[in-house]
Amino acid sequence: MEASRILRIGLAGCGTVGSGVVRLLSQQRQAITRRTGVDIQLARILVRNPDRDRGPEVPPQILSTKAADLLAPEIDVVVELLGGCDTAREVVLSAIRAGKHVVTANKALIAQHGAVVFAEAAHRNVSVAIEATCGGGVPVVGAIQRGLVANRIDALYGIVNGTCNFVLSEMLDTRKSYADALADAQRLGYAEADPALDVSGADSAHKLAVLAALAFASPIDLRRVRAEGIERIELADLIAGYEQGYVCKLLAIAERHGKSLALEVLPAFLDRSHPLAAVRGVFNGISLYGHAVGHTHYYGRGAGAGPTASAVLADIVDVAVGTAPRLPYPIPATGATAEGTSYQPLDELEARYYIRFQVQDRPGVLAEIARVFAEQRISLSALTQRDPHDETGRQIVPLVVTTHRARVGDIRAALGRMERIEAVARPPVAIRIVDTPEEA
Amino acid sequence: MEASRILRIGLAGCGTVGSGVVRLLSQQRQAITRRTGVDIQLARILVRNPDRDRGPEVPPQILSTKAADLLAPEIDVVVELLGGCDTAREVVLSAIRAGKHVVTANKALIAQHGAVVFAEAAHRNVSVAIEATCGGGVPVVGAIQRGLVANRIDALYGIVNGTCNFVLSEMLDTRKSYADALADAQRLGYAEADPALDVSGADSAHKLAVLAALAFASPIDLRRVRAEGIERIELADLIAGYEQGYVCKLLAIAERHGKSLALEVLPAFLDRSHPLAAVRGVFNGISLYGHAVGHTHYYGRGAGAGPTASAVLADIVDVAVGTAPRLPYPIPATGATAEGTSYQPLDELEARYYIRFQVQDRPGVLAEIARVFAEQRISLSALTQRDPHDETGRQIVPLVVTTHRARVGDIRAALGRMERIEAVARPPVAIRIVDTPEEA
Repeated sequence: MEASRILRIGLAGCGTVGSGVVRLLSQQRQAITRRTGVDIQLARILVRNPDRDRGPEVPPQILSTKAADLLAPEIDVVVELLGGCDTAREVVLSAIRAGKHVVTANKALIAQHGAVVFAEAAHRNVSVAIEATCGGGVPVVGAIQRGLVANRIDALYGIVNGTCNFVLSEMLDTRKSYADALADAQRLGYAEADPALDVSGADSAHKLAVLAALAFASPIDLRRVRAEGIERIELADLIAGYEQGYVCKLLAIAERHGKSLALEVLPAFLDRSHPLAAVRGVFNGISLYGHAVGHTHYYGRGAGAGPTASAVLADIVDVAVGTAPRLPYPIPATGATAEGTSYQPLDELEARYYIRFQVQDRPGVLAEIARVFAEQRISLSALTQRDPHDETGRQIVPLVVTTHRARVGDIRAALGRMERIEAVARPPVAIRIVDTPEEA
Repeated sequence: MEASRILRIGLAGCGTVGSGVVRLLSQQRQAITRRTGVDIQLARILVRNPDRDRGPEVPPQILSTKAADLLAPEIDVVVELLGGCDTAREVVLSAIRAGKHVVTANKALIAQHGAVVFAEAAHRNVSVAIEATCGGGVPVVGAIQRGLVANRIDALYGIVNGTCNFVLSEMLDTRKSYADALADAQRLGYAEADPALDVSGADSAHKLAVLAALAFASPIDLRRVRAEGIERIELADLIAGYEQGYVCKLLAIAERHGKSLALEVLPAFLDRSHPLAAVRGVFNGISLYGHAVGHTHYYGRGAGAGPTASAVLADIVDVAVGTAPRLPYPIPATGATAEGTSYQPLDELEARYYIRFQVQDRPGVLAEIARVFAEQRISLSALTQRDPHDETGRQIVPLVVTTHRARVGDIRAALGRMERIEAVARPPVAIRIVDTPEEA
């Protein structure tokens, strides 16, 4: 098939993902033309350093350091791969105002400024395509926006951060400490030198905000996503859970409770038979529960040049052939613009918990801990004093507790009180035991 | 949002799936209008018996027994849910010729007459949307057509028949015979009274032809898909495999070998850690390996009124908002029209196999079997004579063999020869041990 039309791309950013897009486009350009009739051409690349050699696919004359060059009339689509929020926001908004479609992989930008970006896009009648913001190469945004469009989605459970999933998988599979597994992730390029955004759950919260806004067709205020990370998890916890039939994952959870939404990121124990439990290493997995379709699950690499470029290029093709959605879906936003959504008070939810204490091995400690649970109306289904798995020696022993269903607020209050007990050596580790939804 | 446009549907067929579509549309019509600006109205339903009461969502005056009524000028989209090939083909082709878009859930029709249908659709410039033909509610067609469009797909592994997957899961989980598990499937409505189309692998072959045509952008001749079913599998096989770390699935496999494609449906042992191994009961799962994205996997219910209606309605919405693909993707076809694709001779592939014989317990039998393997140049990695798990009594004992990698043609030839050995009581059961692709 001959190209019946040319689509010219302005690329903002040429780091790992940007170079991946350049490479993939150069590989697949002819195949895409054959399939779609559109010839996708790289017209301009915004970079910080124009002198660096970027290989044979990047002719030096299309490099530029001036953001305004992306607004040249011949450019049809601006692809934003800068990351961060400030410059990226400027680049995206000015592209939209210049009447250009936008493709972005920037989850922080969309999670925090989605309302502004999509309002401007609606006003200018252009598409903003965001497949690469969540789940890397997994086409989960498309699945929600189109494939499941006829469903009322009731729940979303996601493993959306490959770094955390690698660390947790590696700890259990090779019996490593958290620190060693994280160091491995850094050595393999799966974690940043500063891994805080990943291991704290903040990155997962960004993706959850975007996915939930699409799935529930509701504006989401990122500040209403409660996020907890994996920093406190120890190998002993993973082993203890595994022995009870659970696998620990950093889960991003969005659930409908009547007219309200509950949004959380937290380390959770999942039944080993759930498809999410089969998501290992740097892979991501997202389970969506629709009222008509039931449980569907999407799996793949959540990051990396190839997978992200795959999603970016799919969005470019969608824009090229005119099938990118320009629907009035509500899109996440922080602050005043994210009104109209009712949030379930997270402390009112009920759940079971695994809790591990490191306690001094002396009389009375157990009684003290038991009293706190009793006073917070939490009843226990199991209690084990385990052999110490860590470096603390024989004076400090681990005490592992599994609760019956209890109010999350009561669990949190109990944990706060425990931290202040002198015989409790460190803040307790609490992992929610998640009961994934029965299908309707 | 007010409806800015009305889309009128003519529905062909109002059985289980058709009623599901009517119900889901009536539930979600307002939400869809709010999201898309299009009001989807049911204008006409083609039925065999117009006198049957079809509930409050179906006004009797829109029922008709005349296929020609679907071609009335006010109808925009014909939704074909008749099943079968003859009438369905007529309905679909005349709708296209009348300039109407078509949505169909009919995998047999598309697998056998796709080339004709899509050629006509291209000629008339209308969309034919087929999400519901494969994987029920799982939006895997969309994932291939759009989400992975920038990839060269190298392999597809699918569990695409819920009946077979239920039978195999149920046998192992509850230690049932094949016959009992199949009877359960029939009682639960997961299998037809005549289950031949499912258990023989023919239904999986239809879906594989459609998915492979999309994934490889190649015409597929359904007759080049070699299909084997699960009829010979016994509980003893599933247990033996499980003990070696495998789960048995009826797999639909499409692989690229250089410029040729290999297409097969067959019972296969998969490593228990593969996401496909976590696909249980009536669920479906499809793994796609793209050169840029790596391994992605899609999971959900493969059949049933709700999931199929979810896919059908998603396609209707795509047509309604103008985002349904009208790309020149090659589409499967049988016979003379499916030219241009080179097929890998399946007997030239190499694989490991699990093989179980029922042999008479007397001297010389093992030597005879071993000689056949040797003459076919098949070397064995393990051989076990197991306790009999079945009704055959002590004179007939099971002999289980695991081969090293061998030419599939040699394995098949050996199996054929074994069947003619008098001391081999029944045709041997052979299950391929699948090594899923390492990602590039």
